[in-house]
Amino acid sequence: MQPFPTLFVDLDIVRSNISQMSSKAKKAGVELRPHFKTHQSKAIGEIFREFDVTGITVSSIKMAEYFLSDDWDDITIAFPANVLAHEYYNRIAKRISLKTLVLSEEVVKKLDEKLDAELGLYIEIDPDYGRSGIPVSDITRIRSLVNVIEESEHCYPAGFYCHAGHTYKSRSREEIEKKGRQVLQKLEALKSHFPKLPICYGDTPSCSTLEEFGPAEQISPGNFVFYDWMQVQIGSCSPNEIAVYMECPVIEKFADRNQVLIHGGAVHFSKDSVHIDDYQSFGEPMLKYLSEETYVKSLSQEHGIIQCSADVFDKLNIGETIQIFPIHSCLTADLMREYHTKEGQVLDHMNGIN
Amino acid sequence: MQPFPTLFVDLDIVRSNISQMSSKAKKAGVELRPHFKTHQSKAIGEIFREFDVTGITVSSIKMAEYFLSDDWDDITIAFPANVLAHEYYNRIAKRISLKTLVLSEEVVKKLDEKLDAELGLYIEIDPDYGRSGIPVSDITRIRSLVNVIEESEHCYPAGFYCHAGHTYKSRSREEIEKKGRQVLQKLEALKSHFPKLPICYGDTPSCSTLEEFGPAEQISPGNFVFYDWMQVQIGSCSPNEIAVYMECPVIEKFADRNQVLIHGGAVHFSKDSVHIDDYQSFGEPMLKYLSEETYVKSLSQEHGIIQCSADVFDKLNIGETIQIFPIHSCLTADLMREYHTKEGQVLDHMNGIN
Repeated sequence: MQPFPTLFVDLDIVRSNISQMSSKAKKAGVELRPHFKTHQSKAIGEIFREFDVTGITVSSIKMAEYFLSDDWDDITIAFPANVLAHEYYNRIAKRISLKTLVLSEEVVKKLDEKLDAELGLYIEIDPDYGRSGIPVSDITRIRSLVNVIEESEHCYPAGFYCHAGHTYKSRSREEIEKKGRQVLQKLEALKSHFPKLPICYGDTPSCSTLEEFGPAEQISPGNFVFYDWMQVQIGSCSPNEIAVYMECPVIEKFADRNQVLIHGGAVHFSKDSVHIDDYQSFGEPMLKYLSEETYVKSLSQEHGIIQCSADVFDKLNIGETIQIFPIHSCLTADLMREYHTKEGQVLDHMNGIN
Repeated sequence: MQPFPTLFVDLDIVRSNISQMSSKAKKAGVELRPHFKTHQSKAIGEIFREFDVTGITVSSIKMAEYFLSDDWDDITIAFPANVLAHEYYNRIAKRISLKTLVLSEEVVKKLDEKLDAELGLYIEIDPDYGRSGIPVSDITRIRSLVNVIEESEHCYPAGFYCHAGHTYKSRSREEIEKKGRQVLQKLEALKSHFPKLPICYGDTPSCSTLEEFGPAEQISPGNFVFYDWMQVQIGSCSPNEIAVYMECPVIEKFADRNQVLIHGGAVHFSKDSVHIDDYQSFGEPMLKYLSEETYVKSLSQEHGIIQCSADVFDKLNIGETIQIFPIHSCLTADLMREYHTKEGQVLDHMNGIN
């Protein structure tokens, strides 16, 4: 038993999750360009190679450099271009096929002045989600931006990138599918204006539930490699598809309130949470413990408090450990900085353990 | 200008914050045993030495080992003892004076069987906060636990440890002071039963506002070294006492909704937030931007969205940076893993950058 909070990964489930998404992409005739921001691991990236993945997606320049050092040579940084970071784009784009996102003419022009290598630019499209991107219906602005990119010296239009993040607010498979189809319909209209530019689409909820991707030629989901308790709540997956769990020591028990103190806090799980019915959960005790009354009720820096059903409370013992599904596997992995397997292997994470 | 999210520390403010708390402790006749979980930095720990601090507090075994390697030889791990980690306690306690917390006889007995070095045990007292500890009024249980510790072979009672975490729910200096005094009054009653055992008290809100600590002989606040926007909201400090800020690139502007996209997300700030009036803030743009309408409205993994007043929106430019106070400096520092100074120094953090 681990004496400290430890992140475990089940590689059989990882392989099965990748296999399913890969088969679906092949069947639908789209390229799978998986988002590596969830695992941030060369060892897990290696498994994607077994499924013929060659192009990948990352969320930061630093992450692009990490995977470039593992011989990935076709990388999209799915974050709007940062004009302050031109030296990094130059350095990477001289070695591999690099793409990133853009949504304003100002950025294309400022960046182009500083570039001396070829950079692909996906125009970020906002499918009425409201975080970033040009509204999908604003064809005039999109056309104008395509022109500016085409006229630039160092950039070329790589296509359109669309993240339908509002699917994360769903609470059933049907709701996700409905939202996903609405977005694809809007992209259909976009496609009719720009038939030659590929569309890259993808968030885990819609890529997990839809079977066809309409006008999209590429998909770039990320979280599906692990899934997590948030995705179960959204309706993207079932608990037995979750590939990671935290193992945390049971430190103390409070019989007067059926609560258990674990070592496992905000610096391990992250503070992400989901609202389920009338409570807020920061983690979900797994397997045999699955009980609606049992959940991680609160986290401080190192402390976690599990609110238990009476049954679960009786089964937990001080000096043992408890396995917990994280709410948001991307953030938990980012904090835990390495993965353990049941077989005793330790897999890398970009943040490393020093 | 930094091309990526960067955590800056102002060492003048750090020194001033430490100086104030140190003077107050000396005047009140209590030992300052500062909690190092906020900064987790040897370089910042060094500044405490200028103020005669010799005993420190940490939140994990790993953190005790980090500071032991910098010659701190009197360390309290302010987290209930973990019976699975006995080898670590033995290893550390053979080298330095080590103390940790305990709240059940079961743990004392289990631990004692595995120990072969002397370990000080503070009994954790719950001042009706409800996270951990024995209720302050349960003298029978406390006395029984003192006896078990005294009868053990390797442990000795180090005193009582009391974290009044409910002061974090305050929204004014007066409210903190009132809660703090109520707790000290309860501890006064405890003290009358166990006059020889020292009381260690301390959370940043009450240590920042109170001038006297009644029956306590030690205080162990941590966050005060940096403070943060949450502490401003609670009523512990003013904005000009906050010693850390994030510098984040301004990536894009959305004129239709007065929002700005920054590079700076949950993997930089953490997902901690404060509710202020009717909005939720994940960070507070600082200095000249201080405007009630301007705050970090949402964070995803790498994205931050700042909701701006019209004035602030006009002043922000793509390709520049913006300085933002973190909501919770402990978690932000834990994620950022190093500190920059205006003078170009880089200071260590336990999590290190590899």
